[in-house]
Amino acid sequence: MRRNVEETRQRLREAAYAEFAEHGIDGTTVTTIAARAGINKERLYAYFGDKDGLFDEVLTEALEELSRAVAPDGLRFDDLGEFAGRTFDYYEQHPQLARLLQWEGLRGAPPVNATTRTTHYDRKVAATAQAQRDGVIDDRIDAGHLMFMVIALAAWWFAVPQLATMLTGNNADAPGEHARRRASVVAAAQRLAGVNPDPSPRS
Amino acid sequence: MRRNVEETRQRLREAAYAEFAEHGIDGTTVTTIAARAGINKERLYAYFGDKDGLFDEVLTEALEELSRAVAPDGLRFDDLGEFAGRTFDYYEQHPQLARLLQWEGLRGAPPVNATTRTTHYDRKVAATAQAQRDGVIDDRIDAGHLMFMVIALAAWWFAVPQLATMLTGNNADAPGEHARRRASVVAAAQRLAGVNPDPSPRS
Repeated sequence: MRRNVEETRQRLREAAYAEFAEHGIDGTTVTTIAARAGINKERLYAYFGDKDGLFDEVLTEALEELSRAVAPDGLRFDDLGEFAGRTFDYYEQHPQLARLLQWEGLRGAPPVNATTRTTHYDRKVAATAQAQRDGVIDDRIDAGHLMFMVIALAAWWFAVPQLATMLTGNNADAPGEHARRRASVVAAAQRLAGVNPDPSPRS
Repeated sequence: MRRNVEETRQRLREAAYAEFAEHGIDGTTVTTIAARAGINKERLYAYFGDKDGLFDEVLTEALEELSRAVAPDGLRFDDLGEFAGRTFDYYEQHPQLARLLQWEGLRGAPPVNATTRTTHYDRKVAATAQAQRDGVIDDRIDAGHLMFMVIALAAWWFAVPQLATMLTGNNADAPGEHARRRASVVAAAQRLAGVNPDPSPRS
C-alpha cells in the first residue's frame, strides 16, 4: 500500500515536471497534470495541496538533484571553475530545469519552499565565504553575490538561448559549440574566483 | 492622418509591451492588447501582421533603447565594468524588459527580427574583439562569449529574483542592496575583462 502511494506521488511529480517546464504554472492545470499521470486529481490535491505546492515540490526536488550532481564538497580555487562547468553541463542535460526556474521568477510570488532552499544555499555561501577567509578565493566580492553570479555564468545560456545564438553566431547544437561555451564558463568563473585578478593596483 | 497612424501604432506598442511583459506571448491575445490600447484589432493586424510580429517589434525596440542607454562607444578596460553596471541599472529601471527576453526564450522559436538584432550584437562583439586585439581586454575568452556573460552578470538578478533573494539573504529593495549588487556586478565584469587576471602562470 505504502509503495503504491510512493509510485502515485512519483508519477504525479514526473507529469507535473514535464507540464510545468513546458507551459509554466499559469499555463497548465491540475486536471491536465493528473490526466497526464493517469491519476485522479483528488489524489493530487491530497498529496500536494494545490498547484503551487506541487510546483514548489517539483522544483525543489530538481534543484536538490542538481546540487548533488555538481556541488563541490570543499571549495578550492580551481573548484569554482569546475563547479560552474558542471552546472553548465547539468543544465544542458536538463533543459527543463532552467525553464522551471524562469517560470518561478516570472510568477513573482515568493517560493513556498523558500526556507528549505535558503538553508541549502546558505551552506554553499558559507563554504564560499570560508574559502575567501582561507585566501583561496578573492574576497572583494560578497560570497552570496559571487555564488549567484557564478550560477548566472552557467545558467544564462539556457535561459535566453536565442540571445546566445545571436551573440555567438552559433546555435547551441553547432559542432563543438557546447565545449567552447563550457570552456568560456569555466574560465570566467575562475576569473571571478581569482585572487588579486585586477591588473591595476588595489587602492 | 500620418500622425494619427503613428499615434495608433504607438498606443498598440505600449499596450503590447505591458501585456506581453505580464503574461507572455501565449498568455495574452490580440484582442486583449487591442482592447487595452482602445484600438480596433483589425488595425493591429494591418500594422503588425500578427501577435508574434508585434512581440518581436516591441522587444526589438526595447532592446534598441537599452543599447542607446548603456552601450559604450569604444570599449576600454574600465568600460566593460561600467557597461555591466549601466545594464544592471537599466534592467532595474525597466523590469519588464527582462521578462520579455525570458518569455521569448521560453517560446523557443527563433526571433522574427533576428537579423536586425544580430547585426546590432555583431557591432558590440566586434568592438569587444577590437579591444582584445588592442590588449585592453584579455583575449582568452571569445569576444561573443565574453559579451554574453557580461550581460548575464547584469541581467540574471532580474530573471530569477527569487534566487537572488535566497542566495544574498536580501530582497532587491532592502536598503543599500541595489548599490551592493551593482558594485559586485561591476567588479565581476572588470574581472572578466581583466588582462592576465589569473594568479596561476599561463600554461
